[in-house]
Amino acid sequence: MSNVEPLAAPARSGDHAAMPARDCPLREGILEIPGEIALYHGGRLEGVRIAWRLIGAASAPVVCALGGISAHRRVCGTDDPRESWWSEIAGPGRPLDPAHLCILSFDFLGGSGESSPAPEASFPSISSYDQAEVLLRLINHLGIKSLKAIAGGSYGGMVALAFGELYPERVGHLIVIGASDRAHPMATAWRSIERRIVRFGIETGHPAQAIELARALAMTTYRSSEEFAARFAGAPAREAGTLVFPVERYLMARGRAYAGRYRPESFLCLSESIDLHRVDTTRIFVPTSAVGVREDLLVPLADVRAMVARLPSGRLYEISSVYGHDAFLKETEPLRAVFRSALEGSS
Amino acid sequence: MSNVEPLAAPARSGDHAAMPARDCPLREGILEIPGEIALYHGGRLEGVRIAWRLIGAASAPVVCALGGISAHRRVCGTDDPRESWWSEIAGPGRPLDPAHLCILSFDFLGGSGESSPAPEASFPSISSYDQAEVLLRLINHLGIKSLKAIAGGSYGGMVALAFGELYPERVGHLIVIGASDRAHPMATAWRSIERRIVRFGIETGHPAQAIELARALAMTTYRSSEEFAARFAGAPAREAGTLVFPVERYLMARGRAYAGRYRPESFLCLSESIDLHRVDTTRIFVPTSAVGVREDLLVPLADVRAMVARLPSGRLYEISSVYGHDAFLKETEPLRAVFRSALEGSS
Repeated sequence: MSNVEPLAAPARSGDHAAMPARDCPLREGILEIPGEIALYHGGRLEGVRIAWRLIGAASAPVVCALGGISAHRRVCGTDDPRESWWSEIAGPGRPLDPAHLCILSFDFLGGSGESSPAPEASFPSISSYDQAEVLLRLINHLGIKSLKAIAGGSYGGMVALAFGELYPERVGHLIVIGASDRAHPMATAWRSIERRIVRFGIETGHPAQAIELARALAMTTYRSSEEFAARFAGAPAREAGTLVFPVERYLMARGRAYAGRYRPESFLCLSESIDLHRVDTTRIFVPTSAVGVREDLLVPLADVRAMVARLPSGRLYEISSVYGHDAFLKETEPLRAVFRSALEGSS
Repeated sequence: MSNVEPLAAPARSGDHAAMPARDCPLREGILEIPGEIALYHGGRLEGVRIAWRLIGAASAPVVCALGGISAHRRVCGTDDPRESWWSEIAGPGRPLDPAHLCILSFDFLGGSGESSPAPEASFPSISSYDQAEVLLRLINHLGIKSLKAIAGGSYGGMVALAFGELYPERVGHLIVIGASDRAHPMATAWRSIERRIVRFGIETGHPAQAIELARALAMTTYRSSEEFAARFAGAPAREAGTLVFPVERYLMARGRAYAGRYRPESFLCLSESIDLHRVDTTRIFVPTSAVGVREDLLVPLADVRAMVARLPSGRLYEISSVYGHDAFLKETEPLRAVFRSALEGSS
C-alpha cells in the first residue's frame, strides 16, 4: 500500500456523481516514518506508524478530514455507518461527497487507533503541530502535491490551523469548526479534571471506571444546556440504593460505551494536546473558513470571532445548535453552505 | 440557650447604627427536636439536632440568611472574617447589617456543620422542604412569630422558596439569588458526576482525593468562563512529571482546602438535595425578589426568568457578574439595591 499515484489532479466535478459511497475506491495503509521525528514540545519518537485511509476517486481533489480526539481514519463509507465518525457530514449527498472528492484521514499520533505510540509505550506531550507534521509526511508519501482543503472539527480544527501555519503551500483552504487558536481556560479546567480522574483511576487500579467518569464529564461539555433541558427533565429512579437522574443515566451509558473503545493513555495524551495547542494566527495565510457555535461551552463563539479577526484571510460563520460543541458532527445543512463556499473558492 | 425572647418586634432602624459587628449581640445554640421528623422523600429522622446562630439586636426584625451546600450558621461577625461565609454581603455597612437586623442561620440538616445526622450515620435523601421544616421548628423554638425575610443564595434560595410555599404566614419576603424552582438538567449532570467521583473514591478507599476532584469540578460551575479567561491564560508548568495548567493548579488548591473541611457523606447528601429540589411556584404567595445572573452556568438566567413569570408576586433582578453562580457571595453593590428594596417593602 505504500505506492499510490499522485492524487492532486484537477477536479473533475460530476464524474462520479451517481456512484454510491460503498463503491467509492477505498485505500488504506500504514505509513512507517523512517528514523525519528522531533516533537514540538521536546523529545523524539522513533519508528512512528501512521494508519491512514482514503475514500473517493483517485483523480478527485483531496480533502483531509479530521475530528475530535476520539475520531479516527474512518470518516465515512464503512459498512456499518456507526463505525464512521463523520457520517452526517461526509458521504454520498453530504457536504463532503466522495463522489466528487477524495477524503483523506489518519489515526492521530497518540490516539486509540492504529497509529503510534503503541499502547504500552509512555506517551510524550504531543502538539497539534506534530499532527500537522505527520500529515505532511503522509501527503508526501501518498504523492499529494496539495490538499484542496483540510476540514477539521474540534481537535481536528486545531490540527488544520497548525498545518496552515506550517505548510501554506500544501493546502488551499482550512475549514475549522469548533476550534480556535488556543484552548479556553474554562475548557482546560474541565479537561484537566477529566485527566486527573483518569490518572486517579489508573493509580487506584480502576482505569476503566475512571475513564467512564471522565467521558461522562466530557459529554456535558460537548452538548448544550438547551439540549439537556429538553431531553432530561424527568424524575430520578432508585438503582441499587442510589438515586439516578435521567441525565446521569445517559452520561454514564455514554461513558461505558467509550471506556470499551478508548485507551486511558490515549485520552490523557490527546486531551493534553488540546490544552497545549497554540498557533500564531497572524501567520496563517491560507484562506480559512471558521465556524463558531453560539451554544459551544468548550470553544466560546467570542474566541472564534477573535481568532478570525486576527487571521489574514479568515471568514467567520456563526451558527446556533442545540448540539453545542458537537455541532461539527451533526449540523449537516448549515455546514453544507460553509463547505460549498469554501470548496468552490479554493483551487 | 433554649429560652430566647420573641424577636419579631417592629424594626427600630438606626438604633444600633454605630455599633460595630463584633459588639452585636450573638447567640448560638442547638435545637434538639423531640421525637421524629418525617422526611419529604420518605423515611424518618430521630433525635435531630440543629445548630443555629443569631447575630444582631434582639429587638430588630429577623432575617434568615442561607447559603450554598457548604455554608453554615456563621453568616458574619466571626473574629476571623474567613470563617463567615457571607462576609461580603452581611456585616456592618453591608446589605444585611446586624446593626439594623437580627440575622439568623443554621447548619443544614445533613451538612458538615453540627446539625444532624451524625457523621457516622447513613444519610437519607433530604429535601429543601425538610430544611424549611427545620427552619419552622427553629423559629418556633426561638419565639419568632414571623421572619422579615429569608435571603438565600444557591441551595439557600431553594430552601427559601420551599419555606415560602409551606409557611407563607411566617415570612414577609423571599430574596432568592442564583436559585430556581428546580435544578437544571445540565447542573444535575455536573453534580451527579461529582457525586459519582466521591462514591468512586469512597469505594476505592480514597475519599479525600475524590472530594478534592469533585470540589474542583464544582468550582468550574460556580464561576464564569469570563473570569477564568481573565485569570488563567498562562502556560502550564511541569510538576512531578505531569504538566499542570494554571487553572488546574487553582482548582486543585480549592479542592484540597475543601476536602479538609467537608465530609463526603454531607457532600453527597446536600448535592443530591439540590437535584431533588422542586417547588410549586404558583403556590408561593410570599413577595419574592429573585436575582438571576447572566453568567451563571448552574442556574441559567432563563430559568430564573421563567420562575418569576410563574410566581404570584415575584420581581426579577438581572445582573452580570464575572463570578457567575458565586455572584451571591461577591456582588455587594448590586445586591445592596435588591436587599434595600426587598427589606423596605416587607413588613
